[in-house]
Amino acid sequence: MIRYFLACLSMIIALVASPSIAEQLEEQANELIDTALQSDLSWEILESLTTEVGPRLAGSPAEARARDWAVAKLSKLGFSNVHVEPFSMPGWERGNISIKVGEPYSQPLTGTALGKSVGTPVGGLNAEVVRFANYAELLTAKEGSLIGKIAFIDGEMVRTQDGAGYRLAGPRRWSGPYEAAKRGAIAVLIRSVGTDINSRTPHTGGTTYGDDAPRIPAAALSNPDADQLARLLAIKPGLTIHFTQTSRILTEVQSGNVVAEIPGSKFPDEVVLLGAHLDSWDNSTGAQDDGSGVAIVTAAAKIILDHGQPERTIRIVLFGAEEPGLIGARAYLKAHENNLDQIMMVTESDFGAGRVWRMDTGIAKTDEEKADRILAVLARLGVTKGLRTATGGPDVSVLSAAGTPAITLKQNGWNYFDIHHTPNDTLDKVDPEDLKQNTAVYAGFAWMVANIKGGFNRPQN
Amino acid sequence: MIRYFLACLSMIIALVASPSIAEQLEEQANELIDTALQSDLSWEILESLTTEVGPRLAGSPAEARARDWAVAKLSKLGFSNVHVEPFSMPGWERGNISIKVGEPYSQPLTGTALGKSVGTPVGGLNAEVVRFANYAELLTAKEGSLIGKIAFIDGEMVRTQDGAGYRLAGPRRWSGPYEAAKRGAIAVLIRSVGTDINSRTPHTGGTTYGDDAPRIPAAALSNPDADQLARLLAIKPGLTIHFTQTSRILTEVQSGNVVAEIPGSKFPDEVVLLGAHLDSWDNSTGAQDDGSGVAIVTAAAKIILDHGQPERTIRIVLFGAEEPGLIGARAYLKAHENNLDQIMMVTESDFGAGRVWRMDTGIAKTDEEKADRILAVLARLGVTKGLRTATGGPDVSVLSAAGTPAITLKQNGWNYFDIHHTPNDTLDKVDPEDLKQNTAVYAGFAWMVANIKGGFNRPQN
Repeated sequence: MIRYFLACLSMIIALVASPSIAEQLEEQANELIDTALQSDLSWEILESLTTEVGPRLAGSPAEARARDWAVAKLSKLGFSNVHVEPFSMPGWERGNISIKVGEPYSQPLTGTALGKSVGTPVGGLNAEVVRFANYAELLTAKEGSLIGKIAFIDGEMVRTQDGAGYRLAGPRRWSGPYEAAKRGAIAVLIRSVGTDINSRTPHTGGTTYGDDAPRIPAAALSNPDADQLARLLAIKPGLTIHFTQTSRILTEVQSGNVVAEIPGSKFPDEVVLLGAHLDSWDNSTGAQDDGSGVAIVTAAAKIILDHGQPERTIRIVLFGAEEPGLIGARAYLKAHENNLDQIMMVTESDFGAGRVWRMDTGIAKTDEEKADRILAVLARLGVTKGLRTATGGPDVSVLSAAGTPAITLKQNGWNYFDIHHTPNDTLDKVDPEDLKQNTAVYAGFAWMVANIKGGFNRPQN
Repeated sequence: MIRYFLACLSMIIALVASPSIAEQLEEQANELIDTALQSDLSWEILESLTTEVGPRLAGSPAEARARDWAVAKLSKLGFSNVHVEPFSMPGWERGNISIKVGEPYSQPLTGTALGKSVGTPVGGLNAEVVRFANYAELLTAKEGSLIGKIAFIDGEMVRTQDGAGYRLAGPRRWSGPYEAAKRGAIAVLIRSVGTDINSRTPHTGGTTYGDDAPRIPAAALSNPDADQLARLLAIKPGLTIHFTQTSRILTEVQSGNVVAEIPGSKFPDEVVLLGAHLDSWDNSTGAQDDGSGVAIVTAAAKIILDHGQPERTIRIVLFGAEEPGLIGARAYLKAHENNLDQIMMVTESDFGAGRVWRMDTGIAKTDEEKADRILAVLARLGVTKGLRTATGGPDVSVLSAAGTPAITLKQNGWNYFDIHHTPNDTLDKVDPEDLKQNTAVYAGFAWMVANIKGGFNRPQN
């Protein structure tokens, strides 16, 4: 009897002491999270990139230096299969800008070219300005009504945690120049798409022309300058502006995506893809957009690498040329479309370094339980359950649109658009503790996905 | 007995109902304060100047437009003796700037020329950078130790309410280029003298060369750019920078002081001088520096004008060319030095539009009781007793140094140096309620000084 009792007891102890495989997974993820919360690695990577490379415009020599930096950094950290996947793209340079209000209120306004904007004719252009309270109002303007004029597209931007304000205010930048050109405008000025209403730093960012309208020069005014122009137009409708911009589109230039891996021990052909983008706009060191993302996914993967091999492959992809319109992501899709099934999960860190507060899923309904299991681990870091729709992030949205499962680890974007695409996007804006939380979330997440039983299936369309 | 009692009663009633002359003065000042607290006039003046004129660099056509604006505005408001007192001065223009870090960390830094700085040779200069942790450290460098080098003068700036941090950090801008040139430097970069440590907007402001050293080009880096340069120099001492600046000093240009008065009813030759300066740096609309001052003293005087004639003359002086070094103030002194005794009090609003929180006095000891009487009236507006030393303000310090009594109505400068001399000094930074408090303080103050029995005597030296 005693023997039987002891046998039972030892069995119970064994069960308690050695957790199930499932419990082991959670335990390992928690260890990774603990390590990440103590690690300065993501900060060191971010400081190194933003200091040693600085601004890194897509397709520029500086972006090439960023790729060199990334290859050196990823190799030194011990990742496998570190390489560049090159592609070509149209280049662009910002040039100079001058926006001057005409008589009797002669004064300069502060603005910056929208990304990919053409320049003005040499010597600039001089024209009457017509203000639209917002993008929707521009759309009501009749064809031909703006012939020979400069359209000024005003409008507010709402501060939101999840970035919804960007989707509302963004169209005046994305499509405003095209829509104004269709109506005859010869140039466009927009109020910056940004929440820093007191800052004289205009927000750049890509615009997209259409084939059925001329490509006209477009620039963003800082918020206080947009206020000033609105006040001046209230005093004197029909005010003219002299606008000179030397931005130009260049012939084909080189860019590339930088890739590194931790090969999976059991399912090397099942890939968990962690994305971020290497390029920044030229006007800042891109600390939040997207130096932070580069630092977060790299440090998270390195912490996993030091901890032990995952069953599935973890692949870092540092995309090139995200800012001009996901050019690197499209090149990546094209290069990998024949083995896209190998990509079992995509996510990307490209919304700054505010704390991750929500997890959105773009996965098969039958896999939601697995996502909940991951979320349970991340809950201690303040991550809440989010939407059942997710692209994974800007670059990887190209992959999830092609069918891969995706999960978005949503950063707190409350302050993101204060400095987004402005010169103010520098290292000092990133909070080291928030960066650690991000790294911990990505480490825990990637470990869980790379080891969870059954993995993730393609969501139904 | 009843008759006697009634007589006494009527005497008491008379005493209560008609206050003494002294009490009347306080009552009138309080009425002015009440009016000012309800009035939008100072805001309207500030909005008009910053919108319709915009930036107004000393000696520029824009400053001339500001004088035209001021003459029109002061005349329309009904002041007497509105006129310009012209003077000439050396002009200056900022030109363009390019600061590029050399290999292997090639990247641009954001900076702006210091006011009155010369430019670099055409094509710029390329030289090793030597960092000094602060201005004091530069002063310890030996003569000849900086030959052929660019001195980078770093240093912090302490945030203070009374502007003391400016006096501590300011010397690297005021004298840094001169001191570096004496030691052989060929150019100077300073960390901006500003408290906005997260902003990519460099602070301009005048520097002064000496006759015994070459005039070398000098610029200020924004705080994050100074951080970046410090980090880069820590990685690679001996880093080079390519610095091009096209700023230049111009031949003699015109400026002027704009004057307006409310003539005194009893002592027209006793003048209470309310100063502010009309010029701003070229990089902003100068809302806080010193559009607010122009608005405050003009609105305060207008509220007095509408209320009734003061016994002494109240004179508004809107100085030209304060920023390049009190040039208008010196011209004013020169033009009026033969009748300086007529100026019975000077004060100036030139520290933004934060609430007035302290009154400092530079007056005869025997007049301190009068100052206390004024302070008692201003106490309801939150003005506290300050130092027994005061210059009255930057421009009027030239007059108080020559012997006039002075009182400084000290504005709260806690946030002043976040935007001081930067593009961010725009209308949106001024709080309308704070501006009203200022106007009320100046109105109550000016009325009291212009009517107080005995006036103010010259302080002893």
